[in-house]
Amino acid sequence: MKILKNRMKNKLNIRTEKDFPKKGIEFIDITPLFLQKETLKEMQDLFKKEIKKQEVDYIVGPEARGFLLGSMLATALGVGFIPVRKKGKLPPTTVAATANYTKEYGDDVLELPKLVKGSYKNKKFYLVDDIYATGNTMTAIKNCIEEQGGKVVGEGVIINIQELNEKKDLFSLIDINEE
Amino acid sequence: MKILKNRMKNKLNIRTEKDFPKKGIEFIDITPLFLQKETLKEMQDLFKKEIKKQEVDYIVGPEARGFLLGSMLATALGVGFIPVRKKGKLPPTTVAATANYTKEYGDDVLELPKLVKGSYKNKKFYLVDDIYATGNTMTAIKNCIEEQGGKVVGEGVIINIQELNEKKDLFSLIDINEE
Repeated sequence: MKILKNRMKNKLNIRTEKDFPKKGIEFIDITPLFLQKETLKEMQDLFKKEIKKQEVDYIVGPEARGFLLGSMLATALGVGFIPVRKKGKLPPTTVAATANYTKEYGDDVLELPKLVKGSYKNKKFYLVDDIYATGNTMTAIKNCIEEQGGKVVGEGVIINIQELNEKKDLFSLIDINEE
Repeated sequence: MKILKNRMKNKLNIRTEKDFPKKGIEFIDITPLFLQKETLKEMQDLFKKEIKKQEVDYIVGPEARGFLLGSMLATALGVGFIPVRKKGKLPPTTVAATANYTKEYGDDVLELPKLVKGSYKNKKFYLVDDIYATGNTMTAIKNCIEEQGGKVVGEGVIINIQELNEKKDLFSLIDINEE
């Protein structure tokens, strides 16, 4: 793993594991960043500063690791949090929209919950997740929100694996190459 | 569903769904509480006030819905958050302890990550989750932490389904019976 950019002062808190979850893959474990109060606060501050540049109605994050960043950013910004669930977790009558996407091995389906008042139309959403690799998950959620008439005003992650995508308009705390 | 106690001013934000995920079960959906900024803030404030009564080193919450409360409470209190993962999500070398427990249908396994500095020994932990039913998940995590020498100083949930357990020392925002 080669670090290309790091906005964090605490730079030694990512663990990698070779051949996990299968041979040939080096797994990036962001858990230590949440375990340590100093890095947790630093991540919250950096994202808060970035997201505050625009008006946002909701933070959006996918199950399960997107929940970690999502709820702490929503409360810090005083907006709601939309947990995007894996298919089958939300009661069918509460599903507002379905996002189909391709993962490394096979396809998957995510579901967005209905809002409490009104719809996604004309509201402003900021998407977060822990790691951006191919970006398929984020793109599927973005498309799904836009199909509902919502506006995705930004996307942010802890780690962007640059060589796996060509996305330019992404906010990230740490940029790496896997080599 | 009969509400026995409700600490929240926003009282109409829980959705229930009959016969989900299977016939005969009435599912309690806490998603709306996170969607609405007012209820999200109210939950954070109520838990913060309660947990602040004692010294806490870490908030602990199980995947996936325990992450929602967990990270926003950890940041509000200025402590670390320990995400308890389902088996196979953490790289094997980063697992500190394993909690086996019985669910409604069959058994399951949770894994606690290694801390960044030092061990669980003599540290103070507060456990959170969305719903307390039989309490098997919470009890398994508590036992697991105590086996590592850690001290569980409290447990809190959004909803306690009273008739399914006899637990007295639990903090909850809403107490219900399923009848």
